[in-house]
Amino acid sequence: MVILAELDWKTYEARIAGGEAVILLPIGAIEQHGPHMSMNPDVLIPQAISEGVAEQLKNGLVAHPISYGYKSQVKSGGGNFFPGTTCINGKTLIDMIHDVVVAYARHGNRKFVLVNGHYENSMFIVEGIDLALESLRRDGIDANVMLLSYWDYVTPDTIKEVFPDGFTGWDVEHGGVLETSLMLHLHPKLVNMDKVIDHDPATFPPYDMYPSDKSWVIESGTLSSARKATPESGKLLLDVCVAGITESIKERFEA
Amino acid sequence: MVILAELDWKTYEARIAGGEAVILLPIGAIEQHGPHMSMNPDVLIPQAISEGVAEQLKNGLVAHPISYGYKSQVKSGGGNFFPGTTCINGKTLIDMIHDVVVAYARHGNRKFVLVNGHYENSMFIVEGIDLALESLRRDGIDANVMLLSYWDYVTPDTIKEVFPDGFTGWDVEHGGVLETSLMLHLHPKLVNMDKVIDHDPATFPPYDMYPSDKSWVIESGTLSSARKATPESGKLLLDVCVAGITESIKERFEA
Amino acid sequence: MVILAELDWKTYEARIAGGEAVILLPIGAIEQHGPHMSMNPDVLIPQAISEGVAEQLKNGLVAHPISYGYKSQVKSGGGNFFPGTTCINGKTLIDMIHDVVVAYARHGNRKFVLVNGHYENSMFIVEGIDLALESLRRDGIDANVMLLSYWDYVTPDTIKEVFPDGFTGWDVEHGGVLETSLMLHLHPKLVNMDKVIDHDPATFPPYDMYPSDKSWVIESGTLSSARKATPESGKLLLDVCVAGITESIKERFEA
Amino acid sequence: MVILAELDWKTYEARIAGGEAVILLPIGAIEQHGPHMSMNPDVLIPQAISEGVAEQLKNGLVAHPISYGYKSQVKSGGGNFFPGTTCINGKTLIDMIHDVVVAYARHGNRKFVLVNGHYENSMFIVEGIDLALESLRRDGIDANVMLLSYWDYVTPDTIKEVFPDGFTGWDVEHGGVLETSLMLHLHPKLVNMDKVIDHDPATFPPYDMYPSDKSWVIESGTLSSARKATPESGKLLLDVCVAGITESIKERFEA
Amino acid sequence: MVILAELDWKTYEARIAGGEAVILLPIGAIEQHGPHMSMNPDVLIPQAISEGVAEQLKNGLVAHPISYGYKSQVKSGGGNFFPGTTCINGKTLIDMIHDVVVAYARHGNRKFVLVNGHYENSMFIVEGIDLALESLRRDGIDANVMLLSYWDYVTPDTIKEVFPDGFTGWDVEHGGVLETSLMLHLHPKLVNMDKVIDHDPATFPPYDMYPSDKSWVIESGTLSSARKATPESGKLLLDVCVAGITESIKERFEA
Amino acid sequence: MVILAELDWKTYEARIAGGEAVILLPIGAIEQHGPHMSMNPDVLIPQAISEGVAEQLKNGLVAHPISYGYKSQVKSGGGNFFPGTTCINGKTLIDMIHDVVVAYARHGNRKFVLVNGHYENSMFIVEGIDLALESLRRDGIDANVMLLSYWDYVTPDTIKEVFPDGFTGWDVEHGGVLETSLMLHLHPKLVNMDKVIDHDPATFPPYDMYPSDKSWVIESGTLSSARKATPESGKLLLDVCVAGITESIKERFEA
Repeated sequence: MVILAELDWKTYEARIAGGEAVILLPIGAIEQHGPHMSMNPDVLIPQAISEGVAEQLKNGLVAHPISYGYKSQVKSGGGNFFPGTTCINGKTLIDMIHDVVVAYARHGNRKFVLVNGHYENSMFIVEGIDLALESLRRDGIDANVMLLSYWDYVTPDTIKEVFPDGFTGWDVEHGGVLETSLMLHLHPKLVNMDKVIDHDPATFPPYDMYPSDKSWVIESGTLSSARKATPESGKLLLDVCVAGITESIKERFEA
Repeated sequence: MVILAELDWKTYEARIAGGEAVILLPIGAIEQHGPHMSMNPDVLIPQAISEGVAEQLKNGLVAHPISYGYKSQVKSGGGNFFPGTTCINGKTLIDMIHDVVVAYARHGNRKFVLVNGHYENSMFIVEGIDLALESLRRDGIDANVMLLSYWDYVTPDTIKEVFPDGFTGWDVEHGGVLETSLMLHLHPKLVNMDKVIDHDPATFPPYDMYPSDKSWVIESGTLSSARKATPESGKLLLDVCVAGITESIKERFEA
Repeated sequence: MVILAELDWKTYEARIAGGEAVILLPIGAIEQHGPHMSMNPDVLIPQAISEGVAEQLKNGLVAHPISYGYKSQVKSGGGNFFPGTTCINGKTLIDMIHDVVVAYARHGNRKFVLVNGHYENSMFIVEGIDLALESLRRDGIDANVMLLSYWDYVTPDTIKEVFPDGFTGWDVEHGGVLETSLMLHLHPKLVNMDKVIDHDPATFPPYDMYPSDKSWVIESGTLSSARKATPESGKLLLDVCVAGITESIKERFEA
Repeated sequence: MVILAELDWKTYEARIAGGEAVILLPIGAIEQHGPHMSMNPDVLIPQAISEGVAEQLKNGLVAHPISYGYKSQVKSGGGNFFPGTTCINGKTLIDMIHDVVVAYARHGNRKFVLVNGHYENSMFIVEGIDLALESLRRDGIDANVMLLSYWDYVTPDTIKEVFPDGFTGWDVEHGGVLETSLMLHLHPKLVNMDKVIDHDPATFPPYDMYPSDKSWVIESGTLSSARKATPESGKLLLDVCVAGITESIKERFEA
Repeated sequence: MVILAELDWKTYEARIAGGEAVILLPIGAIEQHGPHMSMNPDVLIPQAISEGVAEQLKNGLVAHPISYGYKSQVKSGGGNFFPGTTCINGKTLIDMIHDVVVAYARHGNRKFVLVNGHYENSMFIVEGIDLALESLRRDGIDANVMLLSYWDYVTPDTIKEVFPDGFTGWDVEHGGVLETSLMLHLHPKLVNMDKVIDHDPATFPPYDMYPSDKSWVIESGTLSSARKATPESGKLLLDVCVAGITESIKERFEA
Repeated sequence: MVILAELDWKTYEARIAGGEAVILLPIGAIEQHGPHMSMNPDVLIPQAISEGVAEQLKNGLVAHPISYGYKSQVKSGGGNFFPGTTCINGKTLIDMIHDVVVAYARHGNRKFVLVNGHYENSMFIVEGIDLALESLRRDGIDANVMLLSYWDYVTPDTIKEVFPDGFTGWDVEHGGVLETSLMLHLHPKLVNMDKVIDHDPATFPPYDMYPSDKSWVIESGTLSSARKATPESGKLLLDVCVAGITESIKERFEA
């Protein structure tokens, strides 16, 4: 039982007594990931990783995810102009993170792990956390928040296994082998490998343009080809992330 | 295939062509619902109803829900002080509704149905819609938004069937027969009827107090007893809501 | 002497010493109420009720009202498209309530009664209070706020007297017998019974549409007919509200 | 009939047809004005002047005032620490001005006169107007707004009559002869000349300190003595302001 | 060494130990000042004055200036429609002042002097300070902030020397003798006296109009003629401001 | 003459006629950069690069910089707890970028290059640009904005020259060889190489903690050693950035 919102409140109250529970909060986005995949991997992957981690902890709970994320950027997510890419303003995301962290802290929680699945969210999450901790300090509450993006836990060894022909870099891993493999393992019905569009990894100039220049993005919306994605790679990736994150949390939170 | 975020973007693009698709957006809350039930019925019920409705429409799509809702009030949700009741500020909810409606409209959608599952959200959703339509008008986009709370579609006949001993009123239907029956039908694993605490319906003075007076709320957090909830009543309730909402949409949106 | 702003500051300072005074804050709206009545009943009625109540209390003071309210809704106020209906954004009303409650609390007041006269304001007032109490807590101040809408104090007996032919429900009491009677009693010059447009009570579908569908509203802007309004009914209504609210305050605030 | 909110909406609609009506909006504050006077002169004086002006115009209407104003400053209003001085945040005032001007413009009005009665409001009104005009432009509406503070219409001749012993300057005219005379003329019951505290005009260093240094302010809260205030002076002052403002409006708005 | 940002952090840490350092924060604007002068005098003049003052103090430090200011007004700066006049919203300026004061206070500073060089900024600075002090109080920090506009330190004697033919008033000193003389003394390369347009001082009606009426402003953008500006007058003005402000600070902050 | 604010407005007006000028806006931060260097390199370096670039363009102008930046992060800037690190909230930076871009665009400019010198600013600048373009579109203005961080223009060849013993990565280049060399070349008086603290490059876990864990940061505040910084390397770095950025702009803006 690690899904927080599936507990009744009395059970939850007992679970979090003493502030020792670790609250994992997945944060994602609804964003196109190519013609071969659903638009929710940025939510489903951190959700699955959070659940995997929570099961390894003495007392981990996965909070209901924050599912709408910051505006997709051309170089990391294809850009905020594809149908289905459904993004919110930066201030709204900051406020959402603030309010949700404050709310869980007011229940008595003191140990938070925010598991990000959408690159563009990162700095707005940072600001949301900073403002939440400011609010909580003014209420006399000291909480600790760990923030991570799951891909930072993929080790060089795993990369070698998943990309035997060479890794083209995290930058272009949007809708590519990484996310597609994870989705093939976790939610095979939401992937259709027949629709993968094979193409060279995207390359970009060192600057960004606004309004975005759609000609920079391959028509598929992916930044590298998912052709070599496999469920086996997905399992490897999931395992290495779960293991690494679990270790970080145990170290840091004695949890 | 009615779950919007489970489509790939090309399929989604095709589905929404011409602005004729109806986008159903469930809006809920994470909130205690008594010791016998999980804390997510306000999300899961409008989600299920939206899916049921979408399946009846020519072209209905259920957008990813907005899951965190406005602060629980003593007289309608037991109050914002129970562990697990996880609420966001009014301005955050307004902005969230605004941003999400604008984003889906920018994809080309023009027909929206917002399906609310948490009473306290209502006016903040109204304001989010109003601001979204203002933004869209300034971008040259005219959209139409239907807003409803699912319980307004429960007919007197259904009430008679579900509450054969007399209906105690919508006001106290928090964690009571209505929501519990729906959850028993939809997600039986998230309900434990053994833990239902039987009690008379809550009664309240004509005013509210802030900070809330916890002594007004029965210790269970429910406002009426769920003892007579059944999955059969849940099915009845679901069916009547799905049918009624479908009819409203067809009438209004020729969908 | 119950009008707060008519006191000089020294007298006011003496009156509120010890935080024992009850500050009544009327909150209304400028909104059309049919062709037979001025556009300020939502301000004048709670103002008059607050004054009536303050006179019954040991030490009640009526603060200057907050007069501009949240956007009129079709089903409760005819909608935000009539000339004269002059509404503010939800966030502005939240901030206004916050700032004004904080300001009076910083004078030393601890007992507040917010008397609402415009249905659509309710949830934004709730949020304004919640944020004000958060601010005050962070300043080391504990205040208590009672929130009420005056019509919740009309008793079944009074309804029977005022609506001898049957009550059509609060929902459609916009510009109808209730408000018109109160205005006839309080401000007869602002009512012209010759201009009352007689019509059946409005009926609405269970959903709302945005932008509002003007065809839902009777051309008069009222939701039920004021034809049977009388000053005598107005006096009855005023008296029952004043009596009920006074009792609530005495009970709760020992005032 | 110049009080906008006292019209029924049909009469108002007829009055403002063609956008030719002039909407006068008084903006004030609830603020101590010494031990000899009520705390509402900054609302009542611009209200009275607006009414006087409106009566001189072909088609002038006085909108319901905005009554809570920006934080009193030591050098102009005695400071924001006197009991009864009840001030709102700058952002709230900006939003309030924005929303109210936008609302009246959406009714079809194009000619606005904002009549300020509280010095500290000025720049926040300017910003509210600027943002309102930006919103309206984006809605395709061009409106014109005149902003004035009534005291800028007091002529040297009137000053000589009102201050035969020499004028000590506008800076210290808080709760002094100017405002007290106007109130004696307009609302004699709200002034008690026996409680006037006679003192030399306040003098201040060229800087401000925050938090305010209360020792800078005379204990009475006034910045100059009201001893020589008379209702006759009040009438003179009212007349000169009404005449001057009327002339400005006629010139500018052909009204 | 009085330029704060030119210190390394260890030196800065030592300088501010004990909260005894005085932090001078220049606040200006980028705004046209006539065809004969650069657009940054409102930044450069308070910067130079702050440096001059800091050198007279035991321990004065000049913080990096806040350079973008509030919208230029017709009567004080020619208006916000000249190319090069580059203004920010009032709320942005409020937030900027708030954040910067809070940040320096969190380093341990308690004594602040905000040196304003752009008239239109004043009230937004006041609000920024008020909100900053509120934030700091909630963090348990008491700071003191002095706010001044440098021109308030020009003495009657200096005015006589600088304007031997009579002073036309502060109101019209935009791009005139005062600012031009100061710039001639401080940054002669940024002034070209050959381009000065000679004209009578501007005169205005007692009201403001929005949108601004460009015909009110002389085509040069200045409100009075700079023809008689000299570097000698600039030195006199600088010296009198530096001396006066230094004295105020020493008195108030024992610095 | 490339410094925008040093032009008089008539010259500026002529320079930007037709919207063909390129406006370069440096964006930095006031932040500690080790005990050997001033706290303003994040402002001065993009300022110098922008000037170098503007001189290569047909018509480039360097706008006054935005100098206060987003909160320093432990892994990129040492963290927001060093004295002298003076950071603003994310929303304030978003608004500042919005307002300044809108203001320059309203002058008639259509080609913008935002030159970032502080890593943590990036996403807030993105949001500021996005909101500015939305505002401008609603005003009927289409502008194009290029966003870049100068270090992305350092080529592998330059890295080899600057780091002959191997490059330790951009991540730890805070107060290290890159920034110190640039400052030695540009502002040698603001660097004191005797105070450089030599240490191994910082290493960090894959997650962040909030509140920050100060023990993660070397006491100097730098993330790698500046010992090998030289003015010659600084010149190389400046030249390669100026050349690369100039080329990007010429390509993109035909400027």
